[in-house]
Amino acid sequence: MNTNTSEAVYLDRINRARTEMKRAGVDALILSVGHDLPYLTGYLAMPLERLTLLVVPQIGKASLIIPRLEAPRVHELPTVFSLVPWNETDDPVRLAHELLGNARTIAVGDQMWSRFLVDLLQHRPDNKYVRSVEVMEALRSRKDAAEIAALKAAGAAADRVAAQLHAGEIPMVGRTEAEVSADISARLIAEGHQKVNFAIVAAGENAASPHHHAGDRVIKHGEIVLCDFGGTMNGYCSDITRCVHIGEPPADIAAAYAVLMEAQAAGVAAGVLGSSCENVDAVTRAIIDAAGYGEYFVHRTGHGIGMEEHEDPYMVTGNSTPIAAGYAYSVEPGIYVPGKWGMRLEDIVVATENGPVAVNNANHALVVLDR
Amino acid sequence: MNTNTSEAVYLDRINRARTEMKRAGVDALILSVGHDLPYLTGYLAMPLERLTLLVVPQIGKASLIIPRLEAPRVHELPTVFSLVPWNETDDPVRLAHELLGNARTIAVGDQMWSRFLVDLLQHRPDNKYVRSVEVMEALRSRKDAAEIAALKAAGAAADRVAAQLHAGEIPMVGRTEAEVSADISARLIAEGHQKVNFAIVAAGENAASPHHHAGDRVIKHGEIVLCDFGGTMNGYCSDITRCVHIGEPPADIAAAYAVLMEAQAAGVAAGVLGSSCENVDAVTRAIIDAAGYGEYFVHRTGHGIGMEEHEDPYMVTGNSTPIAAGYAYSVEPGIYVPGKWGMRLEDIVVATENGPVAVNNANHALVVLDR
Repeated sequence: MNTNTSEAVYLDRINRARTEMKRAGVDALILSVGHDLPYLTGYLAMPLERLTLLVVPQIGKASLIIPRLEAPRVHELPTVFSLVPWNETDDPVRLAHELLGNARTIAVGDQMWSRFLVDLLQHRPDNKYVRSVEVMEALRSRKDAAEIAALKAAGAAADRVAAQLHAGEIPMVGRTEAEVSADISARLIAEGHQKVNFAIVAAGENAASPHHHAGDRVIKHGEIVLCDFGGTMNGYCSDITRCVHIGEPPADIAAAYAVLMEAQAAGVAAGVLGSSCENVDAVTRAIIDAAGYGEYFVHRTGHGIGMEEHEDPYMVTGNSTPIAAGYAYSVEPGIYVPGKWGMRLEDIVVATENGPVAVNNANHALVVLDR
Repeated sequence: MNTNTSEAVYLDRINRARTEMKRAGVDALILSVGHDLPYLTGYLAMPLERLTLLVVPQIGKASLIIPRLEAPRVHELPTVFSLVPWNETDDPVRLAHELLGNARTIAVGDQMWSRFLVDLLQHRPDNKYVRSVEVMEALRSRKDAAEIAALKAAGAAADRVAAQLHAGEIPMVGRTEAEVSADISARLIAEGHQKVNFAIVAAGENAASPHHHAGDRVIKHGEIVLCDFGGTMNGYCSDITRCVHIGEPPADIAAAYAVLMEAQAAGVAAGVLGSSCENVDAVTRAIIDAAGYGEYFVHRTGHGIGMEEHEDPYMVTGNSTPIAAGYAYSVEPGIYVPGKWGMRLEDIVVATENGPVAVNNANHALVVLDR
């Protein structure tokens, strides 16, 4: 968890968060599980029933409410926050309520468990609650140089696994999706990730389900296999999708894939500063629509990525946010024909002053494998 | 995910949930990520920014709001719920608001991301929100025969790994905690778990931090090593803690461990029907207190276990809930001397008409290893 990030970086981030709070009219920010907390403090809360909660008032010292038995896990940053450990028979939500004092508008961490907000509502029914993204998106969506370097390193590691896939080093025919998924997972770790976040392997008609769970389905000759995988390396995430075909693809799949490649490349190229997030989506969708596959492209074009696999900003209709330097996001159009086949092509892109830079550079073609 | 559980079981569960809703004055139950949802439907929501939400009105059909691209993952149960897929540009919280109609008291899934409750509050600021545990604890805390069988199978698999630990098959000296943790994790999978939930390995002074994260610390001769590990097998969890000592333990550690063993066994024996959850805690604590280690036992005695590693009921001061048949929970007292050493001993126990039945039966002694 970013143990190399210095206290000065966290202090700067929390000060910038306060500036955003002031702008948004937020009196206090409360953060629990999720990645806003480690972004500001270096500490990732355990996703458990014992509450960990950072309370950041607009003015005054931040406090990290933490179960006493987890306190030894925290690397303390005295200039950034104070520790408030609680004992097993204390009520941590009451502690939070007291620290919140007379705050009226409270920004709540997106992934905080609702049980704690429900309990807080009993104490503070008349406060206004908003999402932490109102405060944190401006900070987290613009990656700094160290964050971009970490994303590139994770992306390069994922690219190496994709290269092994393309080289035929990951056998397909006769293995189950689950076996290939485990193989890819092991390779993500071997290439430097500390954690595998997902390794979707979907063969044939299963590839038409974008979030297919790799199962007992045995991969056969003559099928397309969609592989979408990523993990976390030194605190930042990778995410890449490549498809392979076992044996020469039939004409319909080859034709659709050519459209997909064109759409994806156009989406990457659309990531210029000042253009909008929704425009990236519009660009890929227009090409797929024009080729007649529009009804088969059933999801948005992309998502932000950083400490989380999916985070703001989203490349989706309705998000008119201008693309800014340091934005990192996926470009991943897909075509899914129910009951038949599916395909998706995905790279991570970083927006810069000099235009979009793809983090992933593995071969984009529908590589043909023979086994 | 319980794919063998039949539709009739889910239908029975949702009907019993409605009975509990009526008793608790709850008009609607909303469930997202977490295990209340698979308990009622067999479907585990992906922990993502796209909302999956089961809306269960007190009267009338339940609806599962789900991202369209995840809908193919759902095994439909027409008598239990209807599917309400949403498209990428829809607002799923508005859909939930509409389905909630004129409900006034809403029970919210404990682990639902707060971002969705914050958004729902904008639509429904005047509703009363309570925790789903008010409805679901009565169902989930009393495991049925199939659930108990699954817990026993997972516990037996964890016991086999503990036996390998005790037999010296997991080398300690010269390896890092992280390496031993990875070794234990691989063995949990090899013994039948689908997923490892944690494998705490804490050597020497690190064992004094109850939730220590296994790290680069190299294990040395003459140290105590605390191993607390568990995973999920066929939808149900294992959780066991055993300590080993590399070489003969010094007198202070041997003396403390004897107290710990006595306290843990007494805590297991205390799980008789009609006694209380807090009494299990009181029994272990009294023995550790009387021996003079009270200040070093810094956490509750145990937690419920089932589909989740930690769930209600908790064995903690203040929980006067009577122990009922089918309760499954951990008994895990510990003694932690900061900067020096720590120890914990843990079994899972099921309460039955015939008294407490330990799921774990691995050797409870402080086994001495020579390497």
